[in-house]
Amino acid sequence: MNTKKIFKNPKIAVIPGDGIGKEVMPEGIRALEAANRKFGIGMQFDHFDFASCDYYLKHGKMMPDDWFDTLMKYDAIFFGAVGMPDILPDHVSLWGSLIQFRRGFDQYVNLRPVRLLPGIPCPLANRKPGDIDFFVVRENTEGEYSSVGGKMFPDTDREFVIQESVFTRQGVDRILKYAYDLAQSRPKKHLTSATKSNGIAITMPYWDERVEAMSKKFADVRTDKYHIDILAAHFVMNPDRFDVVVASNLFGDILSDLGPACTGTIAVAPSGSINPEGKFPSLFEPVHGSAPDIFGKMIANPIGQIWSGAMMLDHLGYPEAGKAIFNAIEKVLLAGPGHAPLTPDVGGTAKTDDLGKAIAAAI
Amino acid sequence: MNTKKIFKNPKIAVIPGDGIGKEVMPEGIRALEAANRKFGIGMQFDHFDFASCDYYLKHGKMMPDDWFDTLMKYDAIFFGAVGMPDILPDHVSLWGSLIQFRRGFDQYVNLRPVRLLPGIPCPLANRKPGDIDFFVVRENTEGEYSSVGGKMFPDTDREFVIQESVFTRQGVDRILKYAYDLAQSRPKKHLTSATKSNGIAITMPYWDERVEAMSKKFADVRTDKYHIDILAAHFVMNPDRFDVVVASNLFGDILSDLGPACTGTIAVAPSGSINPEGKFPSLFEPVHGSAPDIFGKMIANPIGQIWSGAMMLDHLGYPEAGKAIFNAIEKVLLAGPGHAPLTPDVGGTAKTDDLGKAIAAAI
Ligand SMILES: CC(C)[C@H](C(=O)O)[C@@H](O)C(=O)O
Ligand SMILES: CC(C)[C@H](C(=O)O)[C@@H](O)C(=O)O
Repeated sequence: MNTKKIFKNPKIAVIPGDGIGKEVMPEGIRALEAANRKFGIGMQFDHFDFASCDYYLKHGKMMPDDWFDTLMKYDAIFFGAVGMPDILPDHVSLWGSLIQFRRGFDQYVNLRPVRLLPGIPCPLANRKPGDIDFFVVRENTEGEYSSVGGKMFPDTDREFVIQESVFTRQGVDRILKYAYDLAQSRPKKHLTSATKSNGIAITMPYWDERVEAMSKKFADVRTDKYHIDILAAHFVMNPDRFDVVVASNLFGDILSDLGPACTGTIAVAPSGSINPEGKFPSLFEPVHGSAPDIFGKMIANPIGQIWSGAMMLDHLGYPEAGKAIFNAIEKVLLAGPGHAPLTPDVGGTAKTDDLGKAIAAAI
Repeated sequence: MNTKKIFKNPKIAVIPGDGIGKEVMPEGIRALEAANRKFGIGMQFDHFDFASCDYYLKHGKMMPDDWFDTLMKYDAIFFGAVGMPDILPDHVSLWGSLIQFRRGFDQYVNLRPVRLLPGIPCPLANRKPGDIDFFVVRENTEGEYSSVGGKMFPDTDREFVIQESVFTRQGVDRILKYAYDLAQSRPKKHLTSATKSNGIAITMPYWDERVEAMSKKFADVRTDKYHIDILAAHFVMNPDRFDVVVASNLFGDILSDLGPACTGTIAVAPSGSINPEGKFPSLFEPVHGSAPDIFGKMIANPIGQIWSGAMMLDHLGYPEAGKAIFNAIEKVLLAGPGHAPLTPDVGGTAKTDDLGKAIAAAI
């Protein structure tokens, strides 16, 4: 990754959240502890019970009023999953926690690897590990997710709602810069921009214009762009074509679910909500949610949490440690059911902690 | 389909447009003529050379000033493809033709079938014809494709652009009504709404509200909704789950490319831009573009054009004739290379017109 800063003795805020977040988090920590010892990182962990529906039920809010100051003392947030829709609507639980973090801590990069893993069934035909290996870089603070707009002529036939998309030069340029830095650090040096300038005819031509300007500063990176409709199609038809894909908040949201869906890894993929300058803590969490339907059975696959830990180490300035965790995941998956204790979703009969222990042992 | 109106002796405006549009159009007509004879429809065709880049080069505009009155005399427009990006930027060619038609003729429904066909390689593993068979119904006039907005503080660090998304009650309700009518006419009676109300927090909750209201009028249709990110993922992971998917202009744009990509049919899929009341002519065209790279070789697959003709017959009130064309396509594809004259993209060595003739003969 392209964070140059190394965080000495990093302090980690651990927030398991809801549902299977509480089951996979110990396995994430187990792997991090193994890497911690092996690489002498000196990482320290503190656990918090807020940003969960349990906390909400006790306190009538998702987080204590001083959450910002509390978490500002940490170098990163290691997060499980949040949301129990049967108890609390998502717009309360998510907007009261994750979205607060993204905005409060200016986590303007949302980063997700899209990678085929051995032993994970892939919905695409004739693809094997190595074929698909790219990143989606999503703008995480502005764009289509504004809160500006409203309704006119309510409850009449003339009723309408409007909502602004807002793209600022600062907001666009910094996400492009991050994506170009990342592309430049990779062997293929290839950046793909997601646009829709043929249809969304004001904001998206502006996005294209800024990509064009930034591309001049990264002459060694090959740039191309696709409209979001055909880009989504190519994720299915030609996923081997991509290296770094940069996208607005909404387009990135779509592509960063679609990518892992194409590799079959949506249940084990990691993500980072990153403030690249390290002025604020960044957050790392699995892509999967709290999965209330399987919570309590200890059958959740902990790889998403563990892989998120690997991404966090990368961000904190310990890429070899991150790589060691990722290699351990691959090694255990490669061994296959019968040889490794895999959870039911990947063909085994083992429990969450059995798989977690096997991965920690392989580090 | 849910148009109740039957157009007697329908008059069709034929516009081949650019590139392979000119090669596949004769095959579209050939199939329609065969159905015309067999079912005694009395369809008449008039050909037009405008809405093409050739026309632009001669006249400095994509269409004559009286295009609206000219085309209003027809019951439907049978369209090939438009655009020659090396000659003319897409925003000139497309916005000067297709987008004019959509808005001028209030073609507020964009309809695309997503169906696995025999003999068309599918990028998804373990799927066979019959597994995937649904429609994407896209709102085609408003939503995220507004032209309202602009730039502030140009060329400074404070520069930003904004663009409105606009959802009107009339615009939303009529597309929902169309989609519900369609769902009600199908055996599964299942409607899926594409939303993003957990992120796009003004317009999308409004969309959900209107879906909820409309669903009450269609008690026999099962309704569900997915956020667009996970919906895109399910198109890849569980495409057999869908029957009728209704979406805003932008979400529908994405899903109606992603769907055909998942079935491998993006090069042969049809689409309709429909004014359901028949107050204005509707337009039917293949999803593929003008493909300048293969133009002139007569290797383009004409199935998209022919299938669009089948949709047009459906719309005009001749569903059995539409079905006959579709069955002929399936029959020829089922025969397979060696037995049927297939174009190179589907494993054969035949020319565009050979395949077109085989399908016409099978009607
Ligand atoms: C050319 C473009 C404006 C158009 C759209 O986005 O509507 C195209 O992608 C389509 O789907 O017909
Ligand atoms: C919960 C929702 C607002 C969120 C988003 O769209 O950003 C989620 O889909 C994600 O990707 O983290």
